[in-house]
Amino acid sequence: MRLVRLLLPFVFLPFSVIAQTGPILKLMPLPASVQPGSGQLLITLNFSLGLDGYSEPRLERAEARFLDHLRVKTGMLKTNMSIVPAAAAVLVIHVGRANKGVQELGEDESYTLQVRTTGAQLSAPTPLGALRGLQTFLQLVEITPTGFSVPAVEIQDAPRFPWRGLMIDVSRHFFSLDVLKRNLDGMEAVKLNVFHWHLSDNQGFRVESKKFPKLQEMGSGGQYYTQDEVRELIAYARDRGIRVVPEFDMPGHSTAWFVGYPELASGPGPYTIEGQWGVFDPAMDVTEEHTYKFLDEFIGEMAKLFPDQFFHIGGDEVNGKQWDENAKIQAFMKSRGIKTHDDLQAYFNSHIQAIVSKHGKTMEGWDEILRPDLPKDVVIQSWRGQDSLASAAQQGYRGLLSFGYYLDLMWPASQHYAVDPMTGATANLDAAGKRRILGGEACEWSEYASPENLDSRIWPRAAAIAERLWSAQSVTDVNSMYARLEYVSLDLNGLGLTHRSSYEPMLRRLAGDGDVDALRVLADVVEPVKNYDREELAKTPMTSATPLNRLIDAARPESHVAREFSASVDKLLAGQLDPAGKAQMRATLELWRDNDARLQPTIRGSFLLQEDATLSQSLSALGVIGLQAMDAMDGGQALSDDWKSQQLAFLKEAEKPSAQLLLTVAPSVQKMVEGGVAVAAAARENP
Amino acid sequence: MRLVRLLLPFVFLPFSVIAQTGPILKLMPLPASVQPGSGQLLITLNFSLGLDGYSEPRLERAEARFLDHLRVKTGMLKTNMSIVPAAAAVLVIHVGRANKGVQELGEDESYTLQVRTTGAQLSAPTPLGALRGLQTFLQLVEITPTGFSVPAVEIQDAPRFPWRGLMIDVSRHFFSLDVLKRNLDGMEAVKLNVFHWHLSDNQGFRVESKKFPKLQEMGSGGQYYTQDEVRELIAYARDRGIRVVPEFDMPGHSTAWFVGYPELASGPGPYTIEGQWGVFDPAMDVTEEHTYKFLDEFIGEMAKLFPDQFFHIGGDEVNGKQWDENAKIQAFMKSRGIKTHDDLQAYFNSHIQAIVSKHGKTMEGWDEILRPDLPKDVVIQSWRGQDSLASAAQQGYRGLLSFGYYLDLMWPASQHYAVDPMTGATANLDAAGKRRILGGEACEWSEYASPENLDSRIWPRAAAIAERLWSAQSVTDVNSMYARLEYVSLDLNGLGLTHRSSYEPMLRRLAGDGDVDALRVLADVVEPVKNYDREELAKTPMTSATPLNRLIDAARPESHVAREFSASVDKLLAGQLDPAGKAQMRATLELWRDNDARLQPTIRGSFLLQEDATLSQSLSALGVIGLQAMDAMDGGQALSDDWKSQQLAFLKEAEKPSAQLLLTVAPSVQKMVEGGVAVAAAARENP
Repeated sequence: MRLVRLLLPFVFLPFSVIAQTGPILKLMPLPASVQPGSGQLLITLNFSLGLDGYSEPRLERAEARFLDHLRVKTGMLKTNMSIVPAAAAVLVIHVGRANKGVQELGEDESYTLQVRTTGAQLSAPTPLGALRGLQTFLQLVEITPTGFSVPAVEIQDAPRFPWRGLMIDVSRHFFSLDVLKRNLDGMEAVKLNVFHWHLSDNQGFRVESKKFPKLQEMGSGGQYYTQDEVRELIAYARDRGIRVVPEFDMPGHSTAWFVGYPELASGPGPYTIEGQWGVFDPAMDVTEEHTYKFLDEFIGEMAKLFPDQFFHIGGDEVNGKQWDENAKIQAFMKSRGIKTHDDLQAYFNSHIQAIVSKHGKTMEGWDEILRPDLPKDVVIQSWRGQDSLASAAQQGYRGLLSFGYYLDLMWPASQHYAVDPMTGATANLDAAGKRRILGGEACEWSEYASPENLDSRIWPRAAAIAERLWSAQSVTDVNSMYARLEYVSLDLNGLGLTHRSSYEPMLRRLAGDGDVDALRVLADVVEPVKNYDREELAKTPMTSATPLNRLIDAARPESHVAREFSASVDKLLAGQLDPAGKAQMRATLELWRDNDARLQPTIRGSFLLQEDATLSQSLSALGVIGLQAMDAMDGGQALSDDWKSQQLAFLKEAEKPSAQLLLTVAPSVQKMVEGGVAVAAAARENP
Repeated sequence: MRLVRLLLPFVFLPFSVIAQTGPILKLMPLPASVQPGSGQLLITLNFSLGLDGYSEPRLERAEARFLDHLRVKTGMLKTNMSIVPAAAAVLVIHVGRANKGVQELGEDESYTLQVRTTGAQLSAPTPLGALRGLQTFLQLVEITPTGFSVPAVEIQDAPRFPWRGLMIDVSRHFFSLDVLKRNLDGMEAVKLNVFHWHLSDNQGFRVESKKFPKLQEMGSGGQYYTQDEVRELIAYARDRGIRVVPEFDMPGHSTAWFVGYPELASGPGPYTIEGQWGVFDPAMDVTEEHTYKFLDEFIGEMAKLFPDQFFHIGGDEVNGKQWDENAKIQAFMKSRGIKTHDDLQAYFNSHIQAIVSKHGKTMEGWDEILRPDLPKDVVIQSWRGQDSLASAAQQGYRGLLSFGYYLDLMWPASQHYAVDPMTGATANLDAAGKRRILGGEACEWSEYASPENLDSRIWPRAAAIAERLWSAQSVTDVNSMYARLEYVSLDLNGLGLTHRSSYEPMLRRLAGDGDVDALRVLADVVEPVKNYDREELAKTPMTSATPLNRLIDAARPESHVAREFSASVDKLLAGQLDPAGKAQMRATLELWRDNDARLQPTIRGSFLLQEDATLSQSLSALGVIGLQAMDAMDGGQALSDDWKSQQLAFLKEAEKPSAQLLLTVAPSVQKMVEGGVAVAAAARENP
């Protein structure tokens, strides 16, 4: 599902108070059990690894890939690091048996990893576990005073949930195979195991059909994957222990099908590929036999192309308007006693389920498809939340959670991290019901994602969701999560993901000849508006041709600077900020105060930055206010009520979106103003 | 040639005093003639281009590539920008006739580009000129208050020299086709037209030979290009108007050949691939008929694989030791009256020239091959300099300059920029002699270049050499060059070159968990030692397996920060630095002063950074000294002689290499100390 407004309040969650103890293990997701040892295993130029027990070409490729990543991580690019017989290897990998020919839900992904000063042993029942363990080993590699090394440790690990997915919408914006592959590399690094490929929607049909070639020829604007490319991606995913679940959204979200095959639609047509975002009227004519004949043949073709057991039929957001306006459909409903859109869609779903089942697949769909008359093997992907999921489980259906995991809503990682598939209603399920909760999927809907910024919309935040789905439910320390997320982010950069590297060129483009450093100061403290506010605030409707080259498109979903500033302000107000911290805070506020003067000429010179002039002014004003608050606190002077109310009025404005961006440090400055009085009073008493 | 020590003093050249007038055109190389117009051509979502006159698939691919680059430059990734019939195009490209089937030396590369507010016309006699003009157009695209646009302008352009090359040594370190391709993209962007592929040397033989497969099987460590890959790269280069000249270095620099074919050598063998750097003894047995039979067959095979007219046989740095130690060779020399190594090499060269000629190619080699008995079509590539080049030209040989263009010597761009093929002895040649000077080549020898930092060793400095070879000799304004070089550097980043993006990850790897910001402060002001000092200063001999992951490998060849600081110090001492500039200078010096305290824990935690501890301390000391000098100047106080001599003694030490790095801001601080007295005195007189 996409566009129904989720009525969620946007809150920054308070940091967990659980303290991190000992050195941080640079692992994400955190393993089930970690026993630190003593000493470390040095990674030398002669590092080697070798396979023991069961072997297969996939494992050999995994070894080679592991060495490539190890070379990048250590900068030891041309070395003798090599694959050798297990008896001679520094890292011995023991695998028990093969996985299934096509990766199945719930296959064993467990592994144990023992690292000693003299060598390491990775043991796993199946290749899948070995893949997971190799990623753990790579994450542990760090630079130390004596060399690159891995700390001695004993890890036993297995996932909490068997279904840990990432969905990418390639319909609203198309992404080439290269872009998808690097995101699969990212998935492997954080142990996600399902790539959900949202392949069709109103804005584009993205797979070659040989039976119905007008689907891609007329429905994609030339941007689609050939069947060879699909097979290539599936093989790439299998190498990384990732299942590929295709989604063909129906009976709504299907305008792109109708461009080539208008006879499938409930309205008269003709149709063109939808260029705008939203929920649209076109829907399949679910009363016609020829629709089912078409879908039978199409699903038959796709069931062969995509080997995974699950076949996602979407099923979300049918507004029913075309059904209402079609007299034939109305007559059909009347004759069968079908009263509502939901009932008509249920009629469709049961037919589709039969077709999907006939072709050997298990049907999956969004919440809307659920009706008690469907067979119990159907899987529900819930954008609605734990209540909906629990209700499905009680009825005997398996489900996975995507509510709370929509990356395109621009939430901070901590907010996603706080969402657990097993809370609220799901937590109250009986044991059998709980077993039906398979896991979850992070979703990236691509209205505002281009090949240039897709990675920064997904990463590193998806890693926090990956941890939620792999690690124990009790792993909830947000500070620890953020510390480890930074390491993961750097590793992902080394894999070729562009979530970090695309920032600077996008800012340079905006600044032109201007002061890119000043622009960065501003860009570092703004975030795109949350949830669906970008659409709400748009002056003109965006389309798929609208360039994504504004500051909102370059800005990171979550501002590190703002998060750190917020933590410092909390310390300041608690009287716990040391002099160095205070000096740092003053320097930061002065930087902001002076930044507008530096940035305005650049803004004037760039048509894309002109909308950001107010933000820049506001940031400088925040600097001034923050410094005044600090001065007052340092001097132990009370802040006048007049001053205070004046600043709070300004801050209220500054916290509103401007150019669809949020000035994320404004709430912290507001705290300084509000809290300043008390601190100043305390300072007067305890000078 | 490679390793004979070039006895060049390392000097930073003073900036040219020619002032830049008017807005900077973001062009490099500067065209022959630029007439600014008024207004600008907006690049809209509906931008289009189309071909008029002669057409060919290469031009169509160039159009598509142009649109791809334009999309990246503007961030208008998914737009209606398109290729249309010329009559409807915004940018009309008119081409007169085809180029040769294989690009020849001296083909017409001229073009004219007219940009008006309503459209643009690019006209060129051949596709080569169109390729050049398209790059000019792309460089002109800029962001303005009203949109992305190109200023109205009329440009007439043609290169000064017909041979403008970049040599990459793939023997000492191997680079995959992808790495080479992105460097060819860079070459196209700055109008270089010869890729000189240094394919064999002691450390590796890098091309598949089907006739002599042991060359690559035993001489490459598995790192070589298949013939299909060679063809792929040549096609890629041709699309970009770039010739590909292969070099197979002989009779020296050839150890890698002898691993598989020891019978070619003058010494007994057996041989292994050389792992170290330097000049080594092994040389071909140039007295044996079977050597020439082998080379005849080999060159015949390669002459077919590489279509270019020129065939580079190297010919440099034969030390003659194996010849001296071989009784048979000594007897041969005596019997033929051959007295010296040079004479024996000349004997070899005349045989090889006949073979190269027999296979339809023109021989090229380094200075050493030149002897008056060679045919006059031979081309000399001079690492020795203009005198050697002029001497060759006087004898009737064509030549090109690489002296002064060795990128691996880590010179600043300004130093390369100051080297002109037509100065000194070459400037005094007669007209016919001058015509024999074909141009020049930038050379990147790869002892210290990995796939990770190769781009930063070549770019953006190679663009300054490209301008030297394309633009008029009178184009010498260094400030203008540096200003434009920055734009080129950003454009190259957009093409996928990694000279900017690899810096941060390399620093992060060094810093580990530590303070990467503090490390960056240090890294920003150091440069690798120049010329061959890295080898001189090495404690243990480096080999091809030595990781290139130290600070010297991450540091940029030229420090922007140091160049800008130096310019500010000059202003300061001239009494021309305004208060804002002074405040900036103080802030910079304070940053340095405080940096060591921040950085030392990181240094202690990283075995790779421990060698940089002294540098970090020195930088902080420079900050202190600089601030003291500023204080004295501001206060109009004389600096005591004691203080001064103490600081100068310290600075002398600080200017010495440490960890094979130069603290490039030390000379500027020295100026502050030396100049401070005079300025302080002046301040006392004119307070």
